Amino acid sequence: MKLYMTEASGNSYKIRVLASILNVPYEKVLIDWDNKEHKKPPFLRLNPRGQVPVMEIEGKVFWDSAAHLVYIARKYGGEQWLPTTPLELAEVVQWLAFSQSEIHFGLQWARGVVNKLLFGSLQEYQGYGRKALELLAWRLNDHDWLAVGQPTIADIACYPYVKRAREGGFMLDAYPPVIAWLKRCEALPGWLKLD
Amino acid sequence: MKLYMTEASGNSYKIRVLASILNVPYEKVLIDWDNKEHKKPPFLRLNPRGQVPVMEIEGKVFWDSAAHLVYIARKYGGEQWLPTTPLELAEVVQWLAFSQSEIHFGLQWARGVVNKLLFGSLQEYQGYGRKALELLAWRLNDHDWLAVGQPTIADIACYPYVKRAREGGFMLDAYPPVIAWLKRCEALPGWLKLD
Repeated sequence: MKLYMTEASGNSYKIRVLASILNVPYEKVLIDWDNKEHKKPPFLRLNPRGQVPVMEIEGKVFWDSAAHLVYIARKYGGEQWLPTTPLELAEVVQWLAFSQSEIHFGLQWARGVVNKLLFGSLQEYQGYGRKALELLAWRLNDHDWLAVGQPTIADIACYPYVKRAREGGFMLDAYPPVIAWLKRCEALPGWLKLD
Repeated sequence: MKLYMTEASGNSYKIRVLASILNVPYEKVLIDWDNKEHKKPPFLRLNPRGQVPVMEIEGKVFWDSAAHLVYIARKYGGEQWLPTTPLELAEVVQWLAFSQSEIHFGLQWARGVVNKLLFGSLQEYQGYGRKALELLAWRLNDHDWLAVGQPTIADIACYPYVKRAREGGFMLDAYPPVIAWLKRCEALPGWLKLD
């Protein structure tokens, strides 16, 4: 397995966390983000979206972090990180989807605008981001983990852009259940610290 | 199974298509969208996001269409609609994720702005939407289906907001492989016509 990534990418970080927890070896290929290597032809042939992470797995190319997490969890994680009963699989997928909706175009995009990496309306993205934090707090108020009563790839997928939400102008401390959940994630054996 | 939906909702339509194809019975609960029933307390207790579709399944509430598709496909669809090998599951999940990224905040949001249901930058959303159509055309140029060489929930998840892309100002006819794929979807036994 080969992971095309940058050290700063939160979506790449998700894969590194799961691989670290499950002790799965992979080859790291660092993309020169400052020189826009991810927007130029050799890389664009791997991923026309021009984004990291990309993974080469069993001779196939995957360009979405949810797909990477699903592959590693199913291949190496037994029933722990991605259970396979219809109801449990659906519950994990629901939070994977959430990591790609309000968390992505709310928390992540707001941070992108503040850091001058993205254009668009900060106010609009912060609105979605607050909805993300409210929903997480609502769920985590009486659950330790997002899905199925145990840590899964749902938690890993949602973690990085919540952890970095302050950079997008969010008052993370206003959501104590979310802060407590971030700490529970960080205490999992094998968890990698987010730089 | 109970499906809270509106007739106009593309995300609700995905569930209705899969249930129709697999001949799975469910109870339909029509939400009064014009009177904003989805933004008021009884419904908001089911789904704090204030969106349809929502499903009640085996006593649990799910508020994301990807989760609904995954549940129905795993429960009733054998290996056809959501295969379970790590590589195939990852491939389907990659396109489910895509249906919730560029298709969602590109094609769907642009249509929302044109139809005066959403605010935000039409130009920005159309930019993402064109990327969605380009990626789909790139993939479908030499594949009949989005994932694993057969129709799966990946195709169902991506279909509705591509089918309606013209309403968001997109030149769908500029992407012949996408048009051909829409027709292949519509020819599947049990497929429901999108109103």
